[in-house]
This record gives sequence, structure tokens and C-alpha cells, in this order.
Amino acid sequence: MPRIVVDVMPKPEILDPQGKAIVGALPRLGFDAFSGVRQGKRFELTVEGEVTEAVLEQARSAAATLLSNPVIEDVVNVEVVAD
Amino acid sequence: MPRIVVDVMPKPEILDPQGKAIVGALPRLGFDAFSGVRQGKRFELTVEGEVTEAVLEQARSAAATLLSNPVIEDVVNVEVVAD
Repeated sequence: MPRIVVDVMPKPEILDPQGKAIVGALPRLGFDAFSGVRQGKRFELTVEGEVTEAVLEQARSAAATLLSNPVIEDVVNVEVVAD
Repeated sequence: MPRIVVDVMPKPEILDPQGKAIVGALPRLGFDAFSGVRQGKRFELTVEGEVTEAVLEQARSAAATLLSNPVIEDVVNVEVVAD
């Protein structure tokens, strides 16, 4: 069944305490290649049947309202993945 | 600066209460095209300088240990995105 992936990230100007915690932990575990980490969310929406333009429009609308908070988050990606 | 994106999803057999809550809320908001939702995590790791194979290997290793819990989660994607 096809799925639509929605990626949501905190806006660049918004503090991301989980990302900060991870960027502090990385060098302690020997991972020294990274200067910053941001943590966001990934949603996989399962679609019954075909992904039409109307279904994609529903996904974009759900992403902008239910799946993200537009005050503090950006929807960075809405894409179809086939199985 | 280049970034490495790491996507982590709950394993298919693991209950995902956030996804369940979303799939229940979607039809109440008029989104009727989706039969299932899974919620996972997306990490963006900023790399200073070039993304070498060694840096990618660090990202894969961090993804499998710090960024995911291999008992309940799968790392579904590790990829470089250029800015």
C-alpha cells in the first residue's frame, strides 16, 4: 500500500532541547563529526488505494494543521513512497 | 553546510499510541483518505566540512545506538542533503 511521508522540523529560530542534548552526547560517545543536531518528526500515512492529487492535498493540509504547529514547526517534506 | 538526515520509525510490530491518536483524529477533521499513521523521528546532523565515508559511518553508528532504540525502532534512512 502506498504511504505518504510527512517530515516536520522545529523552525530554525526555535530552541530544540532534544537536539541540544544529542549534540552534547555525541562527542562523549566518540562521534566528533557533527556540530549541530535538530530533532523533528516523521509521519507515515497509509493510503488505501491510489494516491491522487486530492489525497496529496489532504496530506498537505493535515501536515499543516494536525501534524505540525505552524508557530514553531515547518513542514519540510510531503512525499509519496511506494511499497 | 551539509547535513545528514536520519529517519527512525517504530518497528511495525510495536504499538504506536501517537500514530493511533492521529489516525483517530484525521477523520474528525475531514481527512478521510488515510487508513493508518505511524509517528517516528527525523534527525538532522550538521557536518562541518565534507561528508566523507568515515563521517557517514559515524552517522550510521550514532543512528543505531544513540538516535534509536534497536529493540523497538528501525533506522529507515540515513542520507546526505546538501544546502
